Amino acid sequence: MASAEILSIGTELLLGQVLDTNSQFIATELAKLGIDSFFRTTVGDNVARIKEVFQTALRRADIVIATGGLGPTADDLTHECIAELFGVEMVFDEAVFERIKSLFASLKYKMPESNRKQAFRPAGAQILPNPAGTAPGIIWKIDKQECNRIRAKPPKTILTFPGVPRELKAMWHETAAPFLSQNYSEGVTWSRELKHYGIGESALAEKYAHLLALPSPTVAPYAGRWECRLRVTAKAPTVESAMALAKPVIDEIMRDSGTLCYGLDDETLESVVGDLLTKTGKSLAVAESCTGGLVSERLTDIPGSSNYIKLNVVSYANEAKQELLGVSEEVLAAHGAVSAESAEQMAKGIKKLAKSDLGLSVTGIAGPTGGTPEKPVGLVYLGLAANDFYTGKELRLPSRLSRADIRLRSANEALNMVRLFLLEWAVPSAETSR
Amino acid sequence: MASAEILSIGTELLLGQVLDTNSQFIATELAKLGIDSFFRTTVGDNVARIKEVFQTALRRADIVIATGGLGPTADDLTHECIAELFGVEMVFDEAVFERIKSLFASLKYKMPESNRKQAFRPAGAQILPNPAGTAPGIIWKIDKQECNRIRAKPPKTILTFPGVPRELKAMWHETAAPFLSQNYSEGVTWSRELKHYGIGESALAEKYAHLLALPSPTVAPYAGRWECRLRVTAKAPTVESAMALAKPVIDEIMRDSGTLCYGLDDETLESVVGDLLTKTGKSLAVAESCTGGLVSERLTDIPGSSNYIKLNVVSYANEAKQELLGVSEEVLAAHGAVSAESAEQMAKGIKKLAKSDLGLSVTGIAGPTGGTPEKPVGLVYLGLAANDFYTGKELRLPSRLSRADIRLRSANEALNMVRLFLLEWAVPSAETSR
Repeated sequence: MASAEILSIGTELLLGQVLDTNSQFIATELAKLGIDSFFRTTVGDNVARIKEVFQTALRRADIVIATGGLGPTADDLTHECIAELFGVEMVFDEAVFERIKSLFASLKYKMPESNRKQAFRPAGAQILPNPAGTAPGIIWKIDKQECNRIRAKPPKTILTFPGVPRELKAMWHETAAPFLSQNYSEGVTWSRELKHYGIGESALAEKYAHLLALPSPTVAPYAGRWECRLRVTAKAPTVESAMALAKPVIDEIMRDSGTLCYGLDDETLESVVGDLLTKTGKSLAVAESCTGGLVSERLTDIPGSSNYIKLNVVSYANEAKQELLGVSEEVLAAHGAVSAESAEQMAKGIKKLAKSDLGLSVTGIAGPTGGTPEKPVGLVYLGLAANDFYTGKELRLPSRLSRADIRLRSANEALNMVRLFLLEWAVPSAETSR
Repeated sequence: MASAEILSIGTELLLGQVLDTNSQFIATELAKLGIDSFFRTTVGDNVARIKEVFQTALRRADIVIATGGLGPTADDLTHECIAELFGVEMVFDEAVFERIKSLFASLKYKMPESNRKQAFRPAGAQILPNPAGTAPGIIWKIDKQECNRIRAKPPKTILTFPGVPRELKAMWHETAAPFLSQNYSEGVTWSRELKHYGIGESALAEKYAHLLALPSPTVAPYAGRWECRLRVTAKAPTVESAMALAKPVIDEIMRDSGTLCYGLDDETLESVVGDLLTKTGKSLAVAESCTGGLVSERLTDIPGSSNYIKLNVVSYANEAKQELLGVSEEVLAAHGAVSAESAEQMAKGIKKLAKSDLGLSVTGIAGPTGGTPEKPVGLVYLGLAANDFYTGKELRLPSRLSRADIRLRSANEALNMVRLFLLEWAVPSAETSR
């Protein structure tokens, strides 16, 4: 089995100014490809030390994957260090330079002189194209002679990426992953995440203790931000055989979790709600207060959401709740804007205003100020109105939570409320009506 | 100046199943103490490899700080590896064991037999107490004789922590930081970030090339998500002297960057806009289409935003734009919903609807579908209306950007538009009127 080492290059990483999420991404991707990884090293923008970690990594691993240090500034040194280590020249790549120039031209910016530096690569290395930015990386399959120079056993491969996560990911998926898969992958590791909402990690682990004890496929629980995931991982020679190995376990979890399992892998509460709205042909409108647009933003983050979202309102002030949504003077006076009654009028009001099938409301106190003994920070009311249906929910979130966490948790609960409604009510009726 | 190396121990880190935030925490804390850090290594739960990284780190650095591998299970090996490396016994610590037992008793749990393992420490090492969990770490000032065994130059110090971030932080603040400060700290490292919007990293680096070349204070550029930061870092015996050292450089950048520099350190575009709205006593209302609530969500993420935000509208459908915001049939027919004309009517319409001082609008095509040759994905119009003022802006973002990126970039531009307006127009007039 081939092994890879990840090198993260940048003083900002060493100083803790930037959190290294790139290494995690690459590590996960390597695991999928069935490539081992035993060490990972972070080093600052220093020639001697960068060379030292490359040398060490190249002796230990078949593949060395470096991120960072490809920018246009003087402290971006990765390619220079690789060239020095192997005693090769840096050569100017005309095609890369043209690409950088045209990128600046398309953005109508003047190309700074410093970007010229990004068109150089160590002689012998291939360019690893960057579809999302100016800095390309390299893929270098290093031959025997060059390996001898650093006393490493050939063959070795170096891949480099810029530190910008978006660019790195684009380069990985487009070029690096196919390259590694073709050259190094022995068998595959296939995994599927079963995302749960409304059950804690320990409860989930207890429920599926018998699966967590399996040697193959492996099942592991992960706690997220008020959600939990069960990851089922199978190793086999092909994707098909790995999937077949995992299938009985996945089927069992999906059956036993029921609606607690809201989706798979990259699915989110909002994407699942979007799918259900599309499937049922229903439209949704949101009136939110304490979440300030978060529910709307998440729902509309899904491509095609304009098919089921026409209008959402962020009604921060009472006046907006009254005038636009028709929350009554009486309800505001008797119960206040943060109340079950207000949530109900908001949900019904936005449904009417937007002429939608469903109206969803969120009103609460996100803090850090604005709480009272009767209505503390963390008190949130949700409402969901359909033509002949209304349901409300009161959340009493811990007031020690941050404003951002109260907003996030409230939005999750609101989205989950719509999901459960559509699953339990709208989907069967839609199917019946076929 | 003393140097430290951080070792992160755990196969879950190598596989990318867990993001290593502990290293970032420790790195930031070391920088505050003025302790250098040149390498950081991650290794899995494997005796030979853990010993190898300890040996390498102890040769290079004065202090080695390890996290992880202190749990009760068989793959928690950190202390065992340290003992093996130095050829010392593992000794049972009665006081630690009593503490673990009493912790379980207080939680009314039966102590699993496996937790007994956590009461062992390498002979010669002191216990680093864990106020927040069962696993203590160690502080070990290693003497000459033991350093000789691994051919490292004395004195060396090892500190170990469990991988649970909450426990690590408690131990750090209570014991490790005071210990390091007393034994190793030579002055402090103080830094400030100057956040820029509307200038690229290379252009910023070019503009301040003379500052980037300074040996002290150091100035370094970082590219973020369509923003750039200049970080000024000064090392000195005290915080006061470090700040004094950095001040002339910070003053120069703030003067020369002008409105390109939007804020410092933790400030965001939305927090700066919030401060300016508060300072000028103006209120703002947002009508957004392609950003789907993102501008609203960011503005209301700021505590106290209910003082200047009363109502925002996400007008996804044309009908909503017409009925609620008063975008005219004629404009929609002649120019479409994504047009400068529509943005203007949206901005003026939301201002009127919300009775606010300022009305901000965003309408565009976030993709991935919905683009045409005339109106491609990435075409976005912004509008900002005040009583006697209107300004519009057309963005032609690269259509290769993701939906999320187009939304993010559009929201940044919209927030920056409000910022510049308030800075250049509202703030001076508000000051004149005093």
